[in-house]
Amino acid sequence: MKLDAQWIVGFTDGEGCFFVGINSQPEMTAKYQVLPEFTVVQHKRDIQLLHALKDYFDCGVVRTNHGDRMAYRVRSVEHLANRILPFFEKHELKTKKRQDFLKFRNVIHLMMSGVHLTPKGIDDIRIIAAGMNTGQER
Amino acid sequence: MKLDAQWIVGFTDGEGCFFVGINSQPEMTAKYQVLPEFTVVQHKRDIQLLHALKDYFDCGVVRTNHGDRMAYRVRSVEHLANRILPFFEKHELKTKKRQDFLKFRNVIHLMMSGVHLTPKGIDDIRIIAAGMNTGQER
Repeated sequence: MKLDAQWIVGFTDGEGCFFVGINSQPEMTAKYQVLPEFTVVQHKRDIQLLHALKDYFDCGVVRTNHGDRMAYRVRSVEHLANRILPFFEKHELKTKKRQDFLKFRNVIHLMMSGVHLTPKGIDDIRIIAAGMNTGQER
Repeated sequence: MKLDAQWIVGFTDGEGCFFVGINSQPEMTAKYQVLPEFTVVQHKRDIQLLHALKDYFDCGVVRTNHGDRMAYRVRSVEHLANRILPFFEKHELKTKKRQDFLKFRNVIHLMMSGVHLTPKGIDDIRIIAAGMNTGQER
């Protein structure tokens, strides 16, 4: 199945999610690990579409999400920076989800510069992440 | 806001619904009224997108759906037949929602031929409607 860029944008506006997790990791210098991810969740009956997304972006995995739901998921910072960000910069999301994407991009850029390895950097990322996926106009 | 056809397909694959309601109407010959509708539901923060869909299809209404959610809705059989069906015939849905669309189209065609005004027609439509939005591979 071949996907059109605008179809991917529309589907992501509906079903996609840009998320930044921050997990406690006491053994690390910064005490926390930043885990950004781009996911698209769908009922398993449409798993072939998730594989088509994986093929399109040439990265990520298709895994069970919860019950009958499957997820296409990209967690590699390198793949997020080089494949996911450029796509949604070129093809802009039309819903307010674009605000989450822009914050997500900020986090990825901070991680590329290495600041997430410092306590100060973690604090900065935490503030950005707290303002994501809140469903508010921002 | 100008929408791209493929964006609309992707967004509908995520957020759209083709539904056929059948309401009891004892005073009608067929005893039931068939109420098909195409809806796209979205949080009110993205109401401008629902209006953009209304502008694109040049029919339908934008109304409150439930709580913070708004819906773009087309209920006119004429508008469904002449504007919504041709669009999704030309631009095919990629998820299994396409199966619902094809059944929805059957119902609209039956209504255009007037069979929904007879008890036999209602029975036929009821069978089609029962197989829609079940989330099954069909």
